Amino acid sequence: MKDQNFNKAKNWFENLRNQLIKTVSDIDGLEFAETEWKHRHEGGGTMAKIKGKVIEKGGINVSTVSGKFNAEMQARIPGTKTDPRYQATGISVVLHPLSPKIPSMHFNTRFLMTTENWFGGGMDITPCLEFNPLDEYHDGLKNICNKYNANKYKEFKKWCDDYFYLPHRNEPRGAGGIFFDYLKNNWDNDFEFIIEIGKYFHDFVKKTLLDFKNEKWSDSDKNKQLIKRSRYAEFNLLHDRGTKFGLETGGNIDAILMSMPPLAKWD
Amino acid sequence: MKDQNFNKAKNWFENLRNQLIKTVSDIDGLEFAETEWKHRHEGGGTMAKIKGKVIEKGGINVSTVSGKFNAEMQARIPGTKTDPRYQATGISVVLHPLSPKIPSMHFNTRFLMTTENWFGGGMDITPCLEFNPLDEYHDGLKNICNKYNANKYKEFKKWCDDYFYLPHRNEPRGAGGIFFDYLKNNWDNDFEFIIEIGKYFHDFVKKTLLDFKNEKWSDSDKNKQLIKRSRYAEFNLLHDRGTKFGLETGGNIDAILMSMPPLAKWD
Repeated sequence: MKDQNFNKAKNWFENLRNQLIKTVSDIDGLEFAETEWKHRHEGGGTMAKIKGKVIEKGGINVSTVSGKFNAEMQARIPGTKTDPRYQATGISVVLHPLSPKIPSMHFNTRFLMTTENWFGGGMDITPCLEFNPLDEYHDGLKNICNKYNANKYKEFKKWCDDYFYLPHRNEPRGAGGIFFDYLKNNWDNDFEFIIEIGKYFHDFVKKTLLDFKNEKWSDSDKNKQLIKRSRYAEFNLLHDRGTKFGLETGGNIDAILMSMPPLAKWD
Repeated sequence: MKDQNFNKAKNWFENLRNQLIKTVSDIDGLEFAETEWKHRHEGGGTMAKIKGKVIEKGGINVSTVSGKFNAEMQARIPGTKTDPRYQATGISVVLHPLSPKIPSMHFNTRFLMTTENWFGGGMDITPCLEFNPLDEYHDGLKNICNKYNANKYKEFKKWCDDYFYLPHRNEPRGAGGIFFDYLKNNWDNDFEFIIEIGKYFHDFVKKTLLDFKNEKWSDSDKNKQLIKRSRYAEFNLLHDRGTKFGLETGGNIDAILMSMPPLAKWD
């Protein structure tokens, strides 16, 4: 039963990956380059990277790995006290568009199995100019979260705002979205929520790229984007849990730093 | 006697600052913009920043501050166990040239007084292309260090190589130089060494800018520079002690991040 759920999650992440790759490359006109990698324990993943005409730099990664957590991780990860084994499967996406009219878009969802099992993930965007469908974007997330559980949107939104924050600049990284972890209420409902969020991200990416890719921008717009991206780089190197964990544990450097902006400016 | 030494050090750092500002702006053609700032305890400093034609982004900062270290710092800083008071004076310079033919150049020297007193500092460069006077550059440092103490060059060079290293990329930040701390042998000799290093940095900057500022470069050269600068940014945010300390203790963000490259590329 458990393994069946794991496979369902894995299949959905791979399915979503394929949809996203098709949608983004159809709009961009250029293809993703794929690289397979192996995990140092068991399993591995596929990085798909685009350096395109609409997406200046983008990565869509899926991975399915298993192994045993070390003592430090056992202390932090639920359900590993008596048994350090884990299986994990997930999808992670970062898109940095060339146009400053289009926000950077970030998304990930994952399923973890130890003696417990749960979903985690989130979605957030980083505009550098006024982004007009912003209320619509937040409302869409609100609807999905509140359909899942009437109290969750507020919690998931705050988690995102708190997480993507640069204390040394007293400013948020972007416009936020949602962030969640340890979802383990009712598996079918949780999985349904994960699917909804994935579909929402896909549709948001598609609509946003199509609506804004032909909008003109000025040098001053581009300059604002380059400066905003330096804050994005600061966040990832100073605060992002995944990046820090990856760098400290000697993970695949290309996969870990896939999220870094293509070009960033410190004024 | 002690205060007299402190003032001698402070005057030298300010004198060197003035020389550097004159030399760099004469060559660049543009002026530095100066900002005075106050320390949260006592004292303050002057940041001088250039966004020029030869130096794409450069900062020359001097500061003289005093105060009391907190318990955490007392545990780390010599001579503060029984008395937490300190005085510090120093100069810090980072120059990021526009041309990829010219290395980024970094230098700092400082004098600290607690119940003990000592000098620290260093100089290193980050070329992104082959930089031909590299042996000459290292030899110059070697001569100055070995004049100060026959065994010190090897030690100071290794300290620099060990410090400016990116473990996650298995690569050095740049071409190295020297790095030293806790110099407290003979004050006059130590100070003489500090002056020699400062003069050497000034002359190296002047000669390098004059020799290379008119050399042509290609788009491919520029691309290499932008990528090299992303490693520079990674080092500063992930590893640099001064940057981390400044960000964690809520220092002046502009002064702390003055060293960040003007434009950096993650491929």
